Amino acid sequence: MNATSDNPDLSTARARYDTLMEVVRSRITTRAFDPARAVPREHVELVLEAARHAPSGANSQPWHFIVVTDQGVKDRIAAYFREEQTARARLGMKFPTPDYRGLATAPGFIVIASDFRWVRAFPVLNDGSALDAMYRENAERILLQSVAAATMSAHLAATALGYNVWWVTAIGQAKAQEAMKPLLGIPDELAVLDIMCFGHPAKPPYKRWKKTMAEIASWERFDRSQFKSAAEIDEWVAKERHKVMYRDAKNID
Amino acid sequence: MNATSDNPDLSTARARYDTLMEVVRSRITTRAFDPARAVPREHVELVLEAARHAPSGANSQPWHFIVVTDQGVKDRIAAYFREEQTARARLGMKFPTPDYRGLATAPGFIVIASDFRWVRAFPVLNDGSALDAMYRENAERILLQSVAAATMSAHLAATALGYNVWWVTAIGQAKAQEAMKPLLGIPDELAVLDIMCFGHPAKPPYKRWKKTMAEIASWERFDRSQFKSAAEIDEWVAKERHKVMYRDAKNID
Repeated sequence: MNATSDNPDLSTARARYDTLMEVVRSRITTRAFDPARAVPREHVELVLEAARHAPSGANSQPWHFIVVTDQGVKDRIAAYFREEQTARARLGMKFPTPDYRGLATAPGFIVIASDFRWVRAFPVLNDGSALDAMYRENAERILLQSVAAATMSAHLAATALGYNVWWVTAIGQAKAQEAMKPLLGIPDELAVLDIMCFGHPAKPPYKRWKKTMAEIASWERFDRSQFKSAAEIDEWVAKERHKVMYRDAKNID
Repeated sequence: MNATSDNPDLSTARARYDTLMEVVRSRITTRAFDPARAVPREHVELVLEAARHAPSGANSQPWHFIVVTDQGVKDRIAAYFREEQTARARLGMKFPTPDYRGLATAPGFIVIASDFRWVRAFPVLNDGSALDAMYRENAERILLQSVAAATMSAHLAATALGYNVWWVTAIGQAKAQEAMKPLLGIPDELAVLDIMCFGHPAKPPYKRWKKTMAEIASWERFDRSQFKSAAEIDEWVAKERHKVMYRDAKNID
């Protein structure tokens, strides 16, 4: 039995919530770090400890965190992302891309891998049937959400310790896997999902725009006034996205 | 500029981390709540506020939270899960299933929906090509991870306020969508992804087993001693899963 679940002192609970929210609100992205300000090994371990306690489907904990300190490896991973950026630009993707050289400046650098074979631990049939395929699709979602819960926990821990963060998310492409797995000795059975960077920022970071509560929450029934048409979504992508991603988006692929 | 990113006082940072970790460690699942102990509306709003500040791909914030207080709606959602449980048992899935009647006892009950059309905001081509399909699969991962980050933030907020939680994850099945969307007025274009329950537990909750740090983290290169063969994963599913999910797993589908 612990203090938070058994008849909590309400003022203590509120103070704890306020400290949590101070962390949640100051979880701010930076995409260029001050490499001169190191992250001690103890802080990396504290960040991993937060990830370790995250929830997961079937309590399978389907995550593996690889801490990179070798500058050569960081440089090669950053180089892969710059190649991918060039390829996207050539395709005319028009995605407002950050300057991926910033990856190599991160003193805290954790590659997050997962073994998708753990979907066998979720509600699936494991018999190769059409029904199994339906359940398996859902099971992959459970796995992705589990790893994201652990990653979010780690990001909040890094924030609490005074760092800014960069969540390079969902790196599913085969090319990304081929570029990164050999550098890190990751077996074929695992997949690289994310990179987490943290450290002190190279220049003052800024808080991003957030939707209002009315835009993201309804009581009892979905508030139809918040429904977006396909045209409205496309307009947002064309006109707003670069503004909400970067204050000074100069680079559009 | 805020206190956590600009030359932080290290002792303050460590105190903030310790408070965060008190919350992270006491995020404990319960699957039956004490319905007599209500959750005030103010606390629901505080929980949503934590979700609102989460990170997301392209800062798209592709989430919508529907707070359910109507007992009839909770009962009908719980009834759907019991039907699904019966169907799984008939299929011989052998998944250790919780007693889904507990859903209806949750005083805090939030259905989490997402609009997958927001993948258009991520790095995709939107041209229907084979290459676009590859990027789109990755974009769906970004969306799922974004919603999970917001959900994790909400779970930590509920924990900080003194509640136990239940993350009913990744409800992707068409049947689940058909059962829940009409009850909540959710348009076809959106999908129900998760349900978040919180409140005081019906009986003392317990902390689940966690892997050790050595099992989940490596430095520089993946530690091959942590690699599991397919047979080892299957053995874990057969022999360990029910023990790590529930201390007293009586119900195996």
